[in-house]
Amino acid sequence: MPGTKVLITGIDGYSGWPLALHLLSRGHEVVGIDNFVTRKRVREVGSWSATPIPSFARRQAAVRTVLGKEIGFHRGDLGRYDFVRHVLEVERPDTIVHLAEQRSAPYSMIDVHHAVDTQVGNLTGTLHLLYAMREVCPGAHLVKMGTMGEYGTPNVDIAEGFFEVEYRGRRDRMPFPRQAGSWYHWSKVFDSGDVMFASKIWHLRATDVMQGVIYGVRTPEISDDRLLTRFDFDETWGTSLNRFIAQAVLGLPITPYGKGEQRRGFIALEDSMQSLRIAIENPAATGEYRVLNQFDAAYSVNELAEMTARVATEFNLRPVVEHPPNPRTEAEQHYYNPIHDRLVALGYRRTREFEDVMREIFRDLIRFRRRLEARRHVVLPTVQWASADSRAALVARAPPPRNPPTDPGPGDESEHTAA
Amino acid sequence: MPGTKVLITGIDGYSGWPLALHLLSRGHEVVGIDNFVTRKRVREVGSWSATPIPSFARRQAAVRTVLGKEIGFHRGDLGRYDFVRHVLEVERPDTIVHLAEQRSAPYSMIDVHHAVDTQVGNLTGTLHLLYAMREVCPGAHLVKMGTMGEYGTPNVDIAEGFFEVEYRGRRDRMPFPRQAGSWYHWSKVFDSGDVMFASKIWHLRATDVMQGVIYGVRTPEISDDRLLTRFDFDETWGTSLNRFIAQAVLGLPITPYGKGEQRRGFIALEDSMQSLRIAIENPAATGEYRVLNQFDAAYSVNELAEMTARVATEFNLRPVVEHPPNPRTEAEQHYYNPIHDRLVALGYRRTREFEDVMREIFRDLIRFRRRLEARRHVVLPTVQWASADSRAALVARAPPPRNPPTDPGPGDESEHTAA
Repeated sequence: MPGTKVLITGIDGYSGWPLALHLLSRGHEVVGIDNFVTRKRVREVGSWSATPIPSFARRQAAVRTVLGKEIGFHRGDLGRYDFVRHVLEVERPDTIVHLAEQRSAPYSMIDVHHAVDTQVGNLTGTLHLLYAMREVCPGAHLVKMGTMGEYGTPNVDIAEGFFEVEYRGRRDRMPFPRQAGSWYHWSKVFDSGDVMFASKIWHLRATDVMQGVIYGVRTPEISDDRLLTRFDFDETWGTSLNRFIAQAVLGLPITPYGKGEQRRGFIALEDSMQSLRIAIENPAATGEYRVLNQFDAAYSVNELAEMTARVATEFNLRPVVEHPPNPRTEAEQHYYNPIHDRLVALGYRRTREFEDVMREIFRDLIRFRRRLEARRHVVLPTVQWASADSRAALVARAPPPRNPPTDPGPGDESEHTAA
Repeated sequence: MPGTKVLITGIDGYSGWPLALHLLSRGHEVVGIDNFVTRKRVREVGSWSATPIPSFARRQAAVRTVLGKEIGFHRGDLGRYDFVRHVLEVERPDTIVHLAEQRSAPYSMIDVHHAVDTQVGNLTGTLHLLYAMREVCPGAHLVKMGTMGEYGTPNVDIAEGFFEVEYRGRRDRMPFPRQAGSWYHWSKVFDSGDVMFASKIWHLRATDVMQGVIYGVRTPEISDDRLLTRFDFDETWGTSLNRFIAQAVLGLPITPYGKGEQRRGFIALEDSMQSLRIAIENPAATGEYRVLNQFDAAYSVNELAEMTARVATEFNLRPVVEHPPNPRTEAEQHYYNPIHDRLVALGYRRTREFEDVMREIFRDLIRFRRRLEARRHVVLPTVQWASADSRAALVARAPPPRNPPTDPGPGDESEHTAA
């Protein structure tokens, strides 16, 4: 069903931007919302994107020049209900893809204020969207980004949202229990609860995409450097894989935390865009709260570190692997077998192999190596889950030089949020 | 263990006040926090307490005069982290009983702003308390008020917080799934998640009291009208039982919603205080997140209405029972069998019978009948779960006369919040 009008909240982000490009290439209409707060928060911890990111106005211009397409845009904050409602009234989208959330677990664990900002911000944005949908476009389809991290690591298979339970001689279909591992992950659990409830009482259509860890920096639509998406490699905003590859490129040791047996589900950026597009083109039914577990394969942190070290040799890099203490409170050895059948039933097929994507990342990070060098102090962990000194450690290492002499530009990350 | 120092957040409220009196009578030390926002919010919907409530300063003076005891007090808002931390530093409590939350499901359903205020306010207060405990008094015991409504009405027995699950051939102990029925009830689910997580990563002691509906207006310590607790009878702040008795006293029909087969667990105010005291005197272990389901017996709304009509005859009242449409989105006929063994194992024994407590309520409401008469417009439902016009209906009937000629005072409910 090309021709769907899709509103992407958080269109300036790591997933939001390539999703916009992918949907445009499939003939959909795209309009976005962003407040540029991720750019600001990455600066807050002294880092920036490894890939140079143009301002949003330049991104729109590049889409016009390179793809011959238009992207509509509303700058603003989901924390303002009047703004959210106004955008829905003006745009009347068929689908809303909600990506405008604070997405970093370590950021949420810095201190009490970051914990509250994360939970309050994510919750408020989602509630505002739900109410505005009910009032303006109750027939639209909400595709909300959840995370596999909502489920934790139970000792049983993880269901896709709901499971059949027998308990003391009776049976019911119930939500699969949530056991998140950070204030951020809990904020996504809370979102899931609110979306499930709104679907029930207001008969909204909603898909909750329980996403695994996304890896990669490119999709087929990123055919020009002006269309690059952001790539975070610091300890707060980058995934462990991103950090490992940045460490290898910088000649630093690769540092999986603790025993390194923690397993998580992963999906390539391109395949994540495929999944979201499939969810958009196959909307949930009226009143349905549909949960899709979205990942391809599970790897342990050690496996990521070993793959990184192996692929690094192809680029004449010889990183060693070290094991610093785990700053997180989590099971380091555990069962992990989540079900992920629904997207496959809707037509999803894996198109990318892990190591091929890693090679793409290595190539880009080597191209932008001077941007990593300028921020090499940010790849080691400072945020501690269980102790109180995360804030002090972060403050001690920030701020970075704002225009370091090694800055290779042309990245313009200075979009300031109005907030 | 008399001599425990207990900090009660929300000490000015329906449960907070009689809990303070009960703990004082048992030899504990009591200090409280409140921002008086419940008094303000009840005025917002055009109502007031059926019982006249003195200002907090007069309450403290009455405790001094009648009981010969002192209650410490800090006026302020849990939304301000510096305030919360300051109170813990000054008071160093052994136990914190956290009752300072927006507690009305209909209030949370009025419109988007009430939904956001409820979830953000409750979540922020709990997070602030958790962080302040970690920083100031990590060995203290948090007794947090949850609600049986977090579980919803599944078709299986409801566990006390956690249950053993077999799923696809493996077993685990997991949190019992939550399926709340209002934004308010979801806010309590979110609190439970945050408290569970904080207990795990910071090794705090926590008890989550999943409370049923409390009924009653008196405890043995309320020996003087100056010590009365509040009693809400309006559609937003009063329970269905409170409303039914107020309707009977006012000569109005008793109005159970819909089919009236909805079942909920109930506990008398005096026995709820007993439960909380037992939880305080038997704290959770270090790092333990303990869940206690706290109710005595389950009744359907129809049974409440019938009991009300029957007991009303003892007071020469002859109410009829009517069934207006249900404003809530909920199952009206459902299985309901929650387990509630843990408090009994800790020594809890039921001391009050339902109809005896109803008689007490009738006697007090008949004494304060003129206060009901002055607000008789507030006992019928206007907040609709599924439609958009709740706010309009509430605004249309508020504000009430601020000093109606029939006002029998001496209630001084004009404590204003600083917020």
